Formats: sequence, C-alpha cells, structure tokens
Amino acid sequence: MTESHALTPYREALEQELRECFSERQGFLYNVLRYHMGWVDQQGQPETASPRASFHSLLAPVICEAVTGDYEQAMPVAAAIELLYNFSLVHGDVQAGRLEAGARPSIWWVWGPAQAINAGDGFHALARVAVMRLADTGLAPERVLRASEMLDRSCLAMCEGQYADLGFQDRMLVTTGEYDDMIARKSGALTGCSASGGALAAGLDEAEQEVFRDAGVKLGKAWQIMQDVADFWGREGNAVTSSNVLNKKKSLPLIHALENCSTSAKREIGTAYMKRVLESSDLARVVDIMDETGARAYSEERARQLATEAIETLETRARDPQCATRLRALGEMALEAEARD
Amino acid sequence: MTESHALTPYREALEQELRECFSERQGFLYNVLRYHMGWVDQQGQPETASPRASFHSLLAPVICEAVTGDYEQAMPVAAAIELLYNFSLVHGDVQAGRLEAGARPSIWWVWGPAQAINAGDGFHALARVAVMRLADTGLAPERVLRASEMLDRSCLAMCEGQYADLGFQDRMLVTTGEYDDMIARKSGALTGCSASGGALAAGLDEAEQEVFRDAGVKLGKAWQIMQDVADFWGREGNAVTSSNVLNKKKSLPLIHALENCSTSAKREIGTAYMKRVLESSDLARVVDIMDETGARAYSEERARQLATEAIETLETRARDPQCATRLRALGEMALEAEARD
Repeated sequence: MTESHALTPYREALEQELRECFSERQGFLYNVLRYHMGWVDQQGQPETASPRASFHSLLAPVICEAVTGDYEQAMPVAAAIELLYNFSLVHGDVQAGRLEAGARPSIWWVWGPAQAINAGDGFHALARVAVMRLADTGLAPERVLRASEMLDRSCLAMCEGQYADLGFQDRMLVTTGEYDDMIARKSGALTGCSASGGALAAGLDEAEQEVFRDAGVKLGKAWQIMQDVADFWGREGNAVTSSNVLNKKKSLPLIHALENCSTSAKREIGTAYMKRVLESSDLARVVDIMDETGARAYSEERARQLATEAIETLETRARDPQCATRLRALGEMALEAEARD
Repeated sequence: MTESHALTPYREALEQELRECFSERQGFLYNVLRYHMGWVDQQGQPETASPRASFHSLLAPVICEAVTGDYEQAMPVAAAIELLYNFSLVHGDVQAGRLEAGARPSIWWVWGPAQAINAGDGFHALARVAVMRLADTGLAPERVLRASEMLDRSCLAMCEGQYADLGFQDRMLVTTGEYDDMIARKSGALTGCSASGGALAAGLDEAEQEVFRDAGVKLGKAWQIMQDVADFWGREGNAVTSSNVLNKKKSLPLIHALENCSTSAKREIGTAYMKRVLESSDLARVVDIMDETGARAYSEERARQLATEAIETLETRARDPQCATRLRALGEMALEAEARD
C-alpha cells in the first residue's frame, strides 16, 4: 500500500479537528465512539494510534487548498465527512454482521447490536455538530446553511444507496446501470459532498461546487469498485471471507461475470447463491468464473478510468504543481482498498 | 383516551408539512418510511389513516401560536421533531425486538433489521431537511442555524439517553437520580427542542428559548414516566407484554419499588430479573410488589407534577385564554400513554 506522505499534514489537521469535536463530549456513549476512532481501548483507556483518515474526508481540505492555498477553513467539512463515514461503517458492521472494524472488534461485537445502532446514530448526530463549526471559521451564515444542506442531501442519498445495496442481496439480476446508480449514492454522495464542501469553503460559487461534486462522486465510485475487487482478491490464497460477499452483495466483478460468462457458468453461480449460506468451495468456483471473464481487470480498469477523469477535472483547478501532486495522491488513495472481513 | 379536538388544526398542518417533506422523495426507501408514517401499506399502496402526530412535535406550533397568534412558521420545527421521533421509534423497535409499531408490524419485522436500521437513518437525515425549510418561512439564516444547532444537541442527547437506558438493562441498581438524568436526555431533549424551537420560530430571544426548553424537557419526562406506567398497567388483566419490561428496562415504578419494598421482596425481584428471560408468572409478582409499594401512584403523581409545572410556565406566555386551553390540552396529551408491546 502506497504511503502518501503528501497527505500527512491533512491527516494530522483532521485528527486535531475531530478531537475538538469530541472535546466537550463526556460520558460512556462517547467512549464507545472514541473506541471506534482508535483513541481508547474497550475500557476507555487511551491508545496511541497513528492518525486515521479516509480519503473521503481528505478531499475537502486538499481541494480547498488547491484553489485558495489554504486548507484550514475546510476542516469542519472534513470532520463532518469522516464522522458520517464512520456512522455508515458502524451501522454497516451491524447490517453485515461484520466482526471486525479495521484491526479491532467492531462495536456490535463488543457492546451488542443495540448499542452499535445507537453509537452509529451518535456519529450521525456528531457530524452535524462538526459541520456547524464552519461558522467559527468566519463563513457567512448563508454558506454554513448551504454546507449543511449538502450534508443533508448526502446523508439521504447514502441511505437510498444502502437501501438498494441491501435489496440487491436478494436478487441475482442486477444490471451495471443499477449498480452504477447504487454506488453513486452509497459511496459517491459522501465524496461528492466532501469535494463540493471543499469548494464551498474555498469560496467558489454553486456552479463550481457542482463541478467539484461530480468529480468527488466519481472518486467515491472508483473507491467502491476497488472495495468490491478487494472483497474477492484482496487476500492471499484467494480465500474469500468478506462479509459483503457472504451477504451476497452484487459487486461489479460479479455483475460483469454474470453478464459475460456462459449459460452453464451462470447456472453454477446461481446454484451457489441460491444456498442459504454461501460455501467456500462454491466461492472458489465463482472466483474462477470471474477470472475467466476478466471481471477483475474490467473492474479495476473502470475504477481507474473514473479516478483519472475526476483527477483531470480537479487538476485544472490546482493553483500550483504541488497542489496537483496532492490531488493525484488522493486519486491513488481512492484506488487503494483493503480487504475487509 | 381524551380526544383533544383543540389540537386538530395542528395535527392537520403537521401532516401537510410532513407530506411536503416527502413530496420530492422517490424510490423504495421512501416507501418504507411512508409505510411507517401510515400513508401506504407494505406494497406501497396508499392507505387512508387519520393524521397521526406525537405531542412532541405539536409543542412547537402550539407554543409559537401562544406567543404570536400564528403557528405556521413553527411547522418546519414540528416536522423535524416528528421525523426524529420516528427515527428513534424505528431504531428502538430493532433494539428492543419490538414486533409492532402502533397497530402494524414494525419495519424490522417486515423488511428485516438491516433495512430497519437504514430506514431509521433515513428518518434521521430527513429531519435535517425538514428543519432547513425554516429558511423558506423568511427566518434569518442566523436563526435557521440556531434551530439546526438545537436539533444537533437534541439528537446527541437522545443518543446519550438511549445509551444509558440500554446500559440499565444489565443492572439492578439504578437510582431515581440516574433515571431522571436518563429520561431528561432520552425523551426530554426532543420535547425541549420542540418547545425552544417553537419559541425561536416565534421570534423570542435565547434566554426565553431556554425557559421554554426547560418546560419542554419536563413534559418529555412526564410523557416517559407515563409510558413506563403503561408498560406495566396499560393492558387489561395486567398481562405485561411490553418489550421494555421484557428487556429489563429500569422504569420509574420498578426503581421506586426496589427502593421501597422489603428485603425479601427485593430479593424476589432480583431473582426474577436474574433469569435470562423474564417469565410472566414472575412479572405478575413484580407488579404485585410494585402495587404494595404504591409505585404506580408515585409515578403518576411525579408525571403529573412535572406536566403541571411545565404548563404553568407555558401558560404565563399565552396571549389569550384559547391559547392557554390548547397548552393544557397538550399537557394532558403528554400524560396519555398507550401500552406498547
């Protein structure tokens, strides 16, 4: 995995901003959230982890700096996006029955599903507190409201995408068009909001914010496709353990394989997916079929193409070569997915 | 149950406002939410139900009208509160494993827990869209932001209260002080936000908004205590089927009984609650002990006292006797709890 040192300052600034969002929050609920953030252990004792930050949230400051030369004013957007991302992860862990979040047990595994639902709700609510800190940067109330509305739309779109993604688990026939629309909402809405929020913090007008939003959506889609790829090919020896796969999510490689394999291979996949629980021997065969149809290369190419289009758009707005370098680092980060159980 | 005709116009206005919040929302996610609202059936076909409205959300328009003579400008607050209330119900149904929401199967029972978590998230997000409609009433951006911040604080407090409430399920020793703090957050924060939001929409300043908030919190606490009472005594023949009781929530009547019964009775309750699943024969005995300690009368008296204090404060701000009548109707509505499974 590429370590993009170019992004280190933003990671650290985000960490600082997030800790300030938590600074006045006392009580056990927040210890659960802090655990998820990697700041404390299950007993609430401090842990020293290196700053984590999703590429989703880093989009806002990197774009803001590319336009204005300064990134500070975009940090409330970045924090809000990071908290929303964690909201979606915590609820997603319950929905998928995922045991681990990163290298640690997931909240529902430690505190049970009821508290995990509640903790996710806490992240959701805290994201709103985070974005309101834009007012402290001297941004006019009208523009703070606009940022807040962006966040609203993005949250709703995430729920819409999640609805579709969960619904696809019960179907075999999902078209690439349906998949494309689903990931634009489920993953693209958040990165689109981060990018347009960065543009807003940079003082750009609504039409320009939309250009950035479109690029952000593409990056989010690219990221999601690479997640799909990692779910199947992210582990050595091809042992597929991803809860996404086991929950029968319809990922791009699978959809591509179903659209391009022989009728008998299609029937094999259908038989495997008709079982209540997918078996690992079946999955190995599904991966073979995907390999035969070039599903991995197709998906990776699609992701790279989306990321390239996005970065090319963004680069035209970079005020200097250093900013362009950081935008490209972000594009690479979008394509670096880790296999998740 | 008292039918408070005095509140009919507000119910209808709220229904209208809520439908407008949904008017541009297409797709299946929103059909699930519409089902929960009672507007469509499980197949998405329209149903004609009479307008539902919680007393939580009606606080805002009734207060706004009591101060200004007009309630229209408070409807976005009312809609946001109603949507947040439904967010908490939908997630609460999953957390408690509650089969029914009102007279219909709960979302998780129809569409599964994963979609129910997502639907609750949708209500949460939609509440933010609803409150932003304050801007359309001509309210200054600064005041829209202030309303939004009220909602943020209220959401976080709800999560804090829910965390405590869930945590109490595993303990026997919960003091009335701890209970009081828990319900002030879990139920009082939302009604406090409705009341202060109504005051804000009425043009009152922050100090006055706080007075209304305090009264709203008291009404929310009164409502919660009466819910607790209904969980035990709300059904004929005293068959306790409430999921709150079965989940071993620590309600005020139970806490009062534990603080006031004999050591042997306390041991009986402890033995019943130590079982993994509460048995109905045990529950009948627990209710007997509560009756012996006067737990029901104590709780009802506490709820009525809170509601009376709140309404007395609010009445001093009523511009005419009609407004005072409506405020009292709201106080009565807070005390009308229905037994929930």
